[in-house]
Amino acid sequence: MSLLRSNFDVNSISALTIARLSIYLRCVERLAALGVETVSSQELARRFNLNPAQIRKDFAYFGEFGVRGVGYNVVELRSYLREILGLDMEHRLVIVGVGNLAMALANYSRFTGQSFLIVGMLDANPEKIGMKTPNGLLVEDAARLAEIVPQRNVEIGVITTPAPAAQKVCDAMVSSGLRTILNFAPVQVKGPEGVLIRSVDLRIYLEELAFYLTHGIPES
Amino acid sequence: MSLLRSNFDVNSISALTIARLSIYLRCVERLAALGVETVSSQELARRFNLNPAQIRKDFAYFGEFGVRGVGYNVVELRSYLREILGLDMEHRLVIVGVGNLAMALANYSRFTGQSFLIVGMLDANPEKIGMKTPNGLLVEDAARLAEIVPQRNVEIGVITTPAPAAQKVCDAMVSSGLRTILNFAPVQVKGPEGVLIRSVDLRIYLEELAFYLTHGIPES
Repeated sequence: MSLLRSNFDVNSISALTIARLSIYLRCVERLAALGVETVSSQELARRFNLNPAQIRKDFAYFGEFGVRGVGYNVVELRSYLREILGLDMEHRLVIVGVGNLAMALANYSRFTGQSFLIVGMLDANPEKIGMKTPNGLLVEDAARLAEIVPQRNVEIGVITTPAPAAQKVCDAMVSSGLRTILNFAPVQVKGPEGVLIRSVDLRIYLEELAFYLTHGIPES
Repeated sequence: MSLLRSNFDVNSISALTIARLSIYLRCVERLAALGVETVSSQELARRFNLNPAQIRKDFAYFGEFGVRGVGYNVVELRSYLREILGLDMEHRLVIVGVGNLAMALANYSRFTGQSFLIVGMLDANPEKIGMKTPNGLLVEDAARLAEIVPQRNVEIGVITTPAPAAQKVCDAMVSSGLRTILNFAPVQVKGPEGVLIRSVDLRIYLEELAFYLTHGIPES
């Protein structure tokens, strides 16, 4: 029996809350690997430099799965977080634009983990079509996107083209029926209402380091 | 004259606040490009789906740079945010581990922007040393790290090696004098007190999409 609430309003959950759920999951995975059995929100916060009140507030959207005075069962909490994030199912993705970044992603276990499967690597360049990628897929013609998406039950489109091609690829993904798109191209892409597009901005990581280089490194 | 407060305690600023400053900067850059001259925290929040109270609270750590009832001057706000994040100076970085990811980063304007400069691409593999990278650098011997870091005023080390090499590279970066390290290897790396190590976890982006695939896409 799951204690998860299913009647929450998705509009009430901010993207930052969801990002924190991913971070909590990573922390809980580490605790599980260390053999820790239970953890309180205070202890979780202390070990991973998080905010305990924020943890309780974030969890409260989805149910009550801690025991007052005891804390959370680590293995259960991991399973709840995986269920909330939809990671108890496999999600299939296609990558369009087979350059260095696509090759790196295909080769990068941390990107897909256990819940995501790359089922297509597509490119418009005839010289790339037919090439084999590090994850053992053949590069296919990007023109076949509309056929591949339904055939292989693809849910997520990943754009790794150069900037000028990104919007066109995004439009083709939307026409093919994709509703969630991850954009790595260094340009803003837009889609219609009902399509969720996230752009990855790696500068955020460098900017955090620049902040600390400027103002001093905090005591850990 | 800068209105920025310089006497804040770096330990009181959370990593999430700093990440939000990067996001605010991105939003303000977009407004500046659109020719918008002033913006209130409400309007900034509405346009970019942020939290207006959070914006005001985040800014308040660093000074008072809005005008009550009018809002922020966009160009000024951009310049304050750049100064807070330390982006008014150039930060030099070396990348160790020249595979697809390093090549992609070197080629990826969104990664370095205007404030970061890649001044070295290093690898331990003799077959890679001497190769030319997309950003026009020659791959140099990773054994030369300790000499290159002070010579080229490097501040940031980027690890893009496979997981098994990451900790050794991190140790070498620390010995060379680097105090801020960005780790892309799919493994936890550790450093001594006073060294800040951030690991990039691209799964967070996919997990957010999985959340929305599971619970529905919010109305924008």
